[in-house]
Amino acid sequence: MLTLHGFPSSNYHNIVKHALLQKGIPFEEHIVYPQTPEMLAVNPMGKAPSMTTESGTHLSESTVLVDYLEDAYPDNPLYPADADARAQVRQLMKISELYIELPARRLLPSLLVNAPADEDTLKEVRAMLTRGINSLNTLAKFSPYVLGDELSAADIYLRYVLNVAKQVATTLLHWDLATDIPGLSEWSELMASTPIAQKIDADREANHKEFMAYIAAAKAKE
Amino acid sequence: MLTLHGFPSSNYHNIVKHALLQKGIPFEEHIVYPQTPEMLAVNPMGKAPSMTTESGTHLSESTVLVDYLEDAYPDNPLYPADADARAQVRQLMKISELYIELPARRLLPSLLVNAPADEDTLKEVRAMLTRGINSLNTLAKFSPYVLGDELSAADIYLRYVLNVAKQVATTLLHWDLATDIPGLSEWSELMASTPIAQKIDADREANHKEFMAYIAAAKAKE
Repeated sequence: MLTLHGFPSSNYHNIVKHALLQKGIPFEEHIVYPQTPEMLAVNPMGKAPSMTTESGTHLSESTVLVDYLEDAYPDNPLYPADADARAQVRQLMKISELYIELPARRLLPSLLVNAPADEDTLKEVRAMLTRGINSLNTLAKFSPYVLGDELSAADIYLRYVLNVAKQVATTLLHWDLATDIPGLSEWSELMASTPIAQKIDADREANHKEFMAYIAAAKAKE
Repeated sequence: MLTLHGFPSSNYHNIVKHALLQKGIPFEEHIVYPQTPEMLAVNPMGKAPSMTTESGTHLSESTVLVDYLEDAYPDNPLYPADADARAQVRQLMKISELYIELPARRLLPSLLVNAPADEDTLKEVRAMLTRGINSLNTLAKFSPYVLGDELSAADIYLRYVLNVAKQVATTLLHWDLATDIPGLSEWSELMASTPIAQKIDADREANHKEFMAYIAAAKAKE
């Protein structure tokens, strides 16, 4: 059976977990935190998530894992069959990752330990988020799914990527992203309404205390 | 016919150009620089490269474009058929992008305009590059190609991603990356020896002056 290594407070972990549940692929969830010997044994970067396939190959990086699931388990596809449309799904994922999630993530340490972020970083993050959101608005349809009629990997990816960005923007930039992304609120409700999303959100909630203890212990070691 | 929008001094442009040439797909190279109205018309982020497909769809982001070429033009494959092996190709590309190219790229503005980089940034870039290179060393085989017997998209990707990283590391970190990546020098020579690589390198050389003029003009506008 597939093993997913990571922890339910990680949005990247939850992308892959959601894809597994959506495709109906049986898997074991192995709760393990970043930079621990257990995680480093399956991913040389020590980051979550990682996966061990049925043939014993260790793989990492959420987009790599989602693509892997599609290649190895083609049932219940998360990508359209048409090559142009597939690429549009991947493009939306990539733009969300590089220009929304990664800049927002720069502020995550400040958010997690409740420390102030420096003004230059706040300014840079705001500028990149603005460009990323402009691009998202150009490409997204939210009718009702992000690229049209069908749920795709882009919906799953965007849901978890935006979790971090929204939290960071609200708290540290005093910016409610939903007001600048037309259609986002309705789509967010649609995405949150499924049993799969509800399970993932409940698992995240249940993991919160243990995750904060991991953060505190990691910080004490610095 | 496909159109590739970008410029030959861009390593991301060259990844896609190399993939097109390697697969033998006819294309038009449309020389256009970032953040110009022409580029913004095909890519809302305004970045190179972008592509217009035969059906008129605009797509962007180098990994998205390479995956697209594989989906739409399956001849002369750049990914292995086996799902685990395909994912290993994508994983190596992703690790090279996120933990080698992107941190090194933070120093590119200093390199291009010959300005000093601040000490904190230098330290952060060195730390992330060290982790990225450790991961690359764990995953790469260089026997003779980066993941074994067959040339794959990972070879093409790594060649151009390392161009920037090597340049930045040598000039600003006084660090010759090749000494810390066993097998890299032989592989680099192998990759540089093909007519495709030689054409791309010659085109880059020929574009250098125009690209530097673009940089100077963009800087003057700031």
